[in-house]
Amino acid sequence: MSIARPSGRAPGQLREIHIERGFTRHAEGSVLVCFGQTRVLCTASVENRVPAFLRGKGEGWVTAEYGMLPRATHTRSDREAARGKQGGRTLEIQRLIGRSLRACIDRGALGERTITLDCDVLQADGGTRTAAITGAYVALVDAVRWLQKRREIARDPVFGAVAAVSVGVYRGTPVLDLDYAEDSDCDTDMNVVMNDGGGFIELQGTAEGHAFRRDELDALLALAEHGIGELFAAQQAALAQP
Amino acid sequence: MSIARPSGRAPGQLREIHIERGFTRHAEGSVLVCFGQTRVLCTASVENRVPAFLRGKGEGWVTAEYGMLPRATHTRSDREAARGKQGGRTLEIQRLIGRSLRACIDRGALGERTITLDCDVLQADGGTRTAAITGAYVALVDAVRWLQKRREIARDPVFGAVAAVSVGVYRGTPVLDLDYAEDSDCDTDMNVVMNDGGGFIELQGTAEGHAFRRDELDALLALAEHGIGELFAAQQAALAQP
Amino acid sequence: MSIARPSGRAPGQLREIHIERGFTRHAEGSVLVCFGQTRVLCTASVENRVPAFLRGKGEGWVTAEYGMLPRATHTRSDREAARGKQGGRTLEIQRLIGRSLRACIDRGALGERTITLDCDVLQADGGTRTAAITGAYVALVDAVRWLQKRREIARDPVFGAVAAVSVGVYRGTPVLDLDYAEDSDCDTDMNVVMNDGGGFIELQGTAEGHAFRRDELDALLALAEHGIGELFAAQQAALAQP
Amino acid sequence: MSIARPSGRAPGQLREIHIERGFTRHAEGSVLVCFGQTRVLCTASVENRVPAFLRGKGEGWVTAEYGMLPRATHTRSDREAARGKQGGRTLEIQRLIGRSLRACIDRGALGERTITLDCDVLQADGGTRTAAITGAYVALVDAVRWLQKRREIARDPVFGAVAAVSVGVYRGTPVLDLDYAEDSDCDTDMNVVMNDGGGFIELQGTAEGHAFRRDELDALLALAEHGIGELFAAQQAALAQP
Amino acid sequence: MSIARPSGRAPGQLREIHIERGFTRHAEGSVLVCFGQTRVLCTASVENRVPAFLRGKGEGWVTAEYGMLPRATHTRSDREAARGKQGGRTLEIQRLIGRSLRACIDRGALGERTITLDCDVLQADGGTRTAAITGAYVALVDAVRWLQKRREIARDPVFGAVAAVSVGVYRGTPVLDLDYAEDSDCDTDMNVVMNDGGGFIELQGTAEGHAFRRDELDALLALAEHGIGELFAAQQAALAQP
Amino acid sequence: MSIARPSGRAPGQLREIHIERGFTRHAEGSVLVCFGQTRVLCTASVENRVPAFLRGKGEGWVTAEYGMLPRATHTRSDREAARGKQGGRTLEIQRLIGRSLRACIDRGALGERTITLDCDVLQADGGTRTAAITGAYVALVDAVRWLQKRREIARDPVFGAVAAVSVGVYRGTPVLDLDYAEDSDCDTDMNVVMNDGGGFIELQGTAEGHAFRRDELDALLALAEHGIGELFAAQQAALAQP
Repeated sequence: MSIARPSGRAPGQLREIHIERGFTRHAEGSVLVCFGQTRVLCTASVENRVPAFLRGKGEGWVTAEYGMLPRATHTRSDREAARGKQGGRTLEIQRLIGRSLRACIDRGALGERTITLDCDVLQADGGTRTAAITGAYVALVDAVRWLQKRREIARDPVFGAVAAVSVGVYRGTPVLDLDYAEDSDCDTDMNVVMNDGGGFIELQGTAEGHAFRRDELDALLALAEHGIGELFAAQQAALAQP
Repeated sequence: MSIARPSGRAPGQLREIHIERGFTRHAEGSVLVCFGQTRVLCTASVENRVPAFLRGKGEGWVTAEYGMLPRATHTRSDREAARGKQGGRTLEIQRLIGRSLRACIDRGALGERTITLDCDVLQADGGTRTAAITGAYVALVDAVRWLQKRREIARDPVFGAVAAVSVGVYRGTPVLDLDYAEDSDCDTDMNVVMNDGGGFIELQGTAEGHAFRRDELDALLALAEHGIGELFAAQQAALAQP
Repeated sequence: MSIARPSGRAPGQLREIHIERGFTRHAEGSVLVCFGQTRVLCTASVENRVPAFLRGKGEGWVTAEYGMLPRATHTRSDREAARGKQGGRTLEIQRLIGRSLRACIDRGALGERTITLDCDVLQADGGTRTAAITGAYVALVDAVRWLQKRREIARDPVFGAVAAVSVGVYRGTPVLDLDYAEDSDCDTDMNVVMNDGGGFIELQGTAEGHAFRRDELDALLALAEHGIGELFAAQQAALAQP
Repeated sequence: MSIARPSGRAPGQLREIHIERGFTRHAEGSVLVCFGQTRVLCTASVENRVPAFLRGKGEGWVTAEYGMLPRATHTRSDREAARGKQGGRTLEIQRLIGRSLRACIDRGALGERTITLDCDVLQADGGTRTAAITGAYVALVDAVRWLQKRREIARDPVFGAVAAVSVGVYRGTPVLDLDYAEDSDCDTDMNVVMNDGGGFIELQGTAEGHAFRRDELDALLALAEHGIGELFAAQQAALAQP
Repeated sequence: MSIARPSGRAPGQLREIHIERGFTRHAEGSVLVCFGQTRVLCTASVENRVPAFLRGKGEGWVTAEYGMLPRATHTRSDREAARGKQGGRTLEIQRLIGRSLRACIDRGALGERTITLDCDVLQADGGTRTAAITGAYVALVDAVRWLQKRREIARDPVFGAVAAVSVGVYRGTPVLDLDYAEDSDCDTDMNVVMNDGGGFIELQGTAEGHAFRRDELDALLALAEHGIGELFAAQQAALAQP
Repeated sequence: MSIARPSGRAPGQLREIHIERGFTRHAEGSVLVCFGQTRVLCTASVENRVPAFLRGKGEGWVTAEYGMLPRATHTRSDREAARGKQGGRTLEIQRLIGRSLRACIDRGALGERTITLDCDVLQADGGTRTAAITGAYVALVDAVRWLQKRREIARDPVFGAVAAVSVGVYRGTPVLDLDYAEDSDCDTDMNVVMNDGGGFIELQGTAEGHAFRRDELDALLALAEHGIGELFAAQQAALAQP
C-alpha cells in the first residue's frame, strides 16, 4: 500500500540531491550539499596542529562544528553566538558529524593535522544532519586531495566513503529522507550513517509518538541502506568532476 | 563460543542490579540505582509550573538533568559548574533521559506540572545513562504516587514502564551491559531504551572501531531485549516495597 | 597619476556588484549581495513584537545581527557560538548596520513590529560591512513589501534608500571599494553610509598608518559619493525584478 | 533555663555524627559525613601538578570545591552547571573549606601535588559547610595515607586535626550545631573552625536578627569548643578503622 | 610592649579617616571614604522596585555591589567585566556589605524600594571592605534623606549606625586597621562590623599563619570596638555637614 | 546667528577642561580628566609582556579598556561584571581608545612591553570617550617617562600628541563638545580624534535624526580642529607640571 507523502515522493525515494564542490574559495574543501530544500555549506579546513591529547603521537584529528543561520528556519531562531552558548541539539549534531567522519580516516596517515568540518545550514527543510555528513565527506576528500597535491601527505588517509540519511514511520508507512513537513508529523525518526562496505557507523532512532516495533526497524534499515547507496553514487559523481 | 569478559560475566548477563527507593528525603521521588559499581542518584521533583511553550494548555512536562560528581570517575573531571557550562556529552545524555521518560507519560493526565528528573552519578563504571533511565523511571512513579496520595491528580499519568541497557561487541562477541573496562575496549556500543510492550523508544548505536554489520545489530538487539526484561522485573520488585 | 591596484581596477571603480533576491525561502526578505568575492547573505525577518523600551508606543524597530562563517576567511576563525561570545568587531558592525537601516524607516508607519536583518558572511574579501548594509536595504524593502501585500501596514515605512561603500588611501592614492589585499596594505580606511538624498548617515574613518589630511578626506568623500550612486542603481535594478 | 529546640536536643548537644570512609572507590580519599540529616560526600583527589603561582617552588596545594545536588534541599534549586556559574554562596563556602584545610598542611612536605577536596551535598539540613570541613579532613588524611603507602612522600604533611561546627542564638539561647529548622529561625549564626590545639582557624558570625552582644559571643564560642572536641573524637574513631 | 608597625602607627591607632559626601552628582547618596590610602567611592541608588521574592509585601531591600578598578592595586588585575564573571572574593565582599547595611534598615519603613550600594575601590591599601561598609552607611543615610525631602517615605527607616574595621595580629601584637603592608605579613586577620549599640553584626576572622588563641581574640575585639567608636564619630561629623 | 545651548556656551566653546596627574598612586600614569561634569580616571599600566601575536618581534603594544561605574549616569546601569559581559558600546569605545593612542606610539621604541590604558568613568555628562582619549594620552606619557627614568627604554616612543572632541549639529547649529543634554537632543554626533600635526586619526559621525550634508560636515570638522587645539594646550600645560 502506498501513502501520500506531503512531498508526493514514493516511500523509498530520496529528495533531489545536489552536491556542488568549490562553493567558496578559501577553504581546502568547500561543498554545498542540497537534499531538496535543505542546503548546507560544508567546509573542510586544514590546520597543522592537533588537540592536546594527541600531541606528539603522530596522529591527526577530524572534528566538526555545526551551525544554523538564524533564518534558515520557518521562524527566526536566536543566534547562538548572541545567546552565548551552543544549544544541546547543536552540540549533539556536531559530535555525531565528527564521529561519523572519523570512521573513514586513518589518523596515522593524516599525520599531526586537524581537519575541521564546518557544517552551516543556509536553509533547513529536515535532514540537516544527514545532509551535513554526506556533504562533509566530499569536503574532507577535497581537503585531503589538496594535501596530496602539495605532497604534504604520502598516503591517502581516507578509506571508503561515509553517507547518511534519515528514515521514519510516517502515518504507518516507513519512508526515506524526511523533509520538515514529514518529520513534524512522524512517529519514529531515525538517522542512519553507513560506510560503503555496508557497515553501520551510527544509528540513532527516536520514537516520537508510539514506540517502534522490531519489524518497523527492519523496514527502516532496508530503506536507509538503499538510500545511502544512492548518496554514495552522488558523492562519487561530484568527486569525479575536475 | 564464549569469551572471557573482564568482569567474568556471561555475554548475556547483567551486572548486579540494585534499586533503593527513598534514598534522600526531600524529593518526591528519590532512587539510588546501581548497575554493579555504577551508582546514580535519581530524584524526581514536582513543581506547579510548566515551560513557556506549554502554558495554558492543560498539559504537564517531564524533563531531566544529568551530572557527574567530579570524582565519580577514575581521574578527577572538572566540575561543570566551575567551568561555566555543561559539556556536549552531558546535554546529550540529559536530552536522552528526558525523551525516554516522556514516552511513558500522558501529559494531559499530569496536568500543568513539571517533574524534573535529576540524575547525578556518584560513582561511574560504564552505563551511567542506562542506569539513570532505569532508576529515573522508579523515581517518576514515586513522584506520581505522591501526587495521587495528595489527590492532586485524578488519573495515573504513567503508562507502561521504561528501562534501558547498553550492549556492545566486545572482541567480536555481543555482550550485555558493558562496564567501564569493557566499554573502553569495545568495537560497537549501543544504548537501547524500550517500553514493557516490547517497543523501542530510543536506539543509539556507535561504531567505535569497525562498522557493525546487520547480523551484529540483530544479536545486540536480542541481548538488549532480554536484559531490559530483567530490569523491568527489578523496577517492579522495588516498586512493590512499601 | 594612476596607481596599480592589486585588483587592476581604476581608483574610482567598484568591484562587480551582484544583488540576488529570494536567495533563501523562509525569510520575508532574503538577499545575497556580492561585492566582487565578498558574499553576504542578508535576511529580513518580521516579528510582531518590539523590544521592551518600545512596548505600547505604536512604533516599530529595525535591528541587525552580523556573523561570519568560520571559513569565510583565508584562515579559519573560531566560531563565536563556540567561544561563547560575539567579539567587539562583530558587535560594532551589527550596531552600525542597525543604525544605518533605521535611518530610512518611519517607525510609526511600521507599527509594533521588529524587522531583524541577519547579515551572514559566506565569503569575505574586504568590505563585508558595506556590502551587508547595501544588501540589507534590499531585504528590508522585500520584507516591507511582504507586509504590504498581506495588508498588515497601510503606509510604506521606508523612505529613500541607504547604501554603503568603503574608501581608502592606498599607497598615496584615494581608491574606492577596497578588497582584502588593498585593505591590508592601506593607510586610511573609511566606511561611508549615505542616503539617496545625498546625506551622510555614518562616516567611520580610521588612520591605519599615517593620519589623513583634510584634502585626502575630501577626495575620499567624493569617491564614496560616486560609488554609492552606482550602488543605489544596483539596488533599484534588483528591486525592479518581479 | 532550657528551651525546646525543634530537634529536642539539649543546647550543647550535637546531632548524630556519622563518618564513613571509602564511600566511593575511585578517589584517594572518599568520606560520607552525616551531621544528622545533613549528608555530604567529601572526596580527596591527588594530582601531580600545582597552580601556576606555585610551580617550581617545591610546595603543594590543597583546594576545595563545593556543590549541592539540585534536590538536596526542600525545594529544588537550579543546577549551577546549567545556570552557567557558581553562586556567591558556593564560592564563599568552597573558599572557606580550602582555607580551613590548608591550615593543617605542611605544603613543603606535600611536595608539588594538589589535593582537591570535592564536597558535594547529597542531602541538606543545615550545617553543610561545617560537616564538609569535618569530613574533608578525614578524606584528606586518607589521601595522604595513600601517598605514603605508595612511598611518594617521605613525611606526613598533615599536622593536627581540623573540624568545624555551627553555633547560634535560638530564641535567646545559645545552641550547638543548628539544623535547618533552627537555622531558619535564629538570631545569630556562627561557623567556627578550630584545630585540635585549641586554636581558632576561622570564625564567621552573622547577626540575622538583632546584633549579638559580647556575652552571647562568649557563650557561643564555649559551645563550639566543646562540640568540636566531640568531632575530633569522631574523626579519630573513623580513622582508626582499618 | 610596643612594636614598630610599618605605618608607624600605635597598635590601636586608625589611619586617617576621611569621609566626603556628594563626591559625584547623579546618585542619591555619593560618598568618597578614605582609610589612609584606601579610597572607596560608595554610591546609593534608589529604585522603585524590589527583587521578585519581596514583590507585594510592602517591604524594601538594600543590596550592595563591590568592584575594584583594574589599577587600584600595586599590579594591574584583570577587569572582571572582561573576564566575564565576578570572582569569589568580590561576591563574598558584596554579600558582606549588603548584610551589614541591612542590619540597620527597617524594611517596612523603606517601602517597596531598593537601595543599591555600589562600592568601587579607586585605590586599595588594605581594608577596602571595612572602608566600604563605613562609607556606604553614610551614602545610605543620604539616600534616605533624599527620599524624606521628597516626602516619599514617612518614617526614617535607618536605625542606629553601622561601621566596620579590620584588626589583626601583626608579629605577635594585636593591631587596628591593617594597611596592605601589615595585612600581607599578618598571622590573623579579622573584619568586625558593629552597630552603635555595641552589638556585633558580622565577625569574620581568618588565621593566615598560626591559629589564634582565645586571648588574642579578646584583644582583637577590644581594639575593634574602640576603633569602630571613632568611625561612628567620623560618620556623624560628615553627616552633620549641610 | 547664535543659538542658546543648554549649557549657555558659545557654539565653538569647550567645557571647562581639567587634567590632574597623579590622581592615584599605584599606576605608572594616573590622570583624572574632566570635560565639565564628565570625569574619567585614566590609568596607564606597564607590563613586561606582549600579546601572543607580537611575541619575539621586539615590538610593544598599547591597548585600552573602558568602564563606567554603575551610578556614573543619571539612572543606575547594571554592572557589566555582574551581567557577565561587556556591552557592544563598551567594546566599541575601548577599541577606539586603543587605536587612537597606538597612532602616536613607535612600537619598536617601546620594546616588548604592553601599556594598558584603563579609562573608568566616575561621572558621565556626555563625551566620555573623547575625554578618555585626551586623558589617556597624558597617562601614557607619564608611563613612558616612568620607563625612561628607570632607563628601561632608550628612546621616547611617543611622537606627537593625540586628543579628541565631539561635535554635533544641535538644533541646526554646529556646536563643539556636547554635554549630555545637548547630545540627547542632537541631530548629528561626531567624534574626532586628531594628532598635533593636524592629521585625522579617527572620524566617527552618526546622523541621529536627519542625515548631515557636506557643508555641515565641513563646519563640524572646523569646530573640532579648533577645539582639539585647545585640548593639546591643556595636555601640555598638565605635562609641564613637575
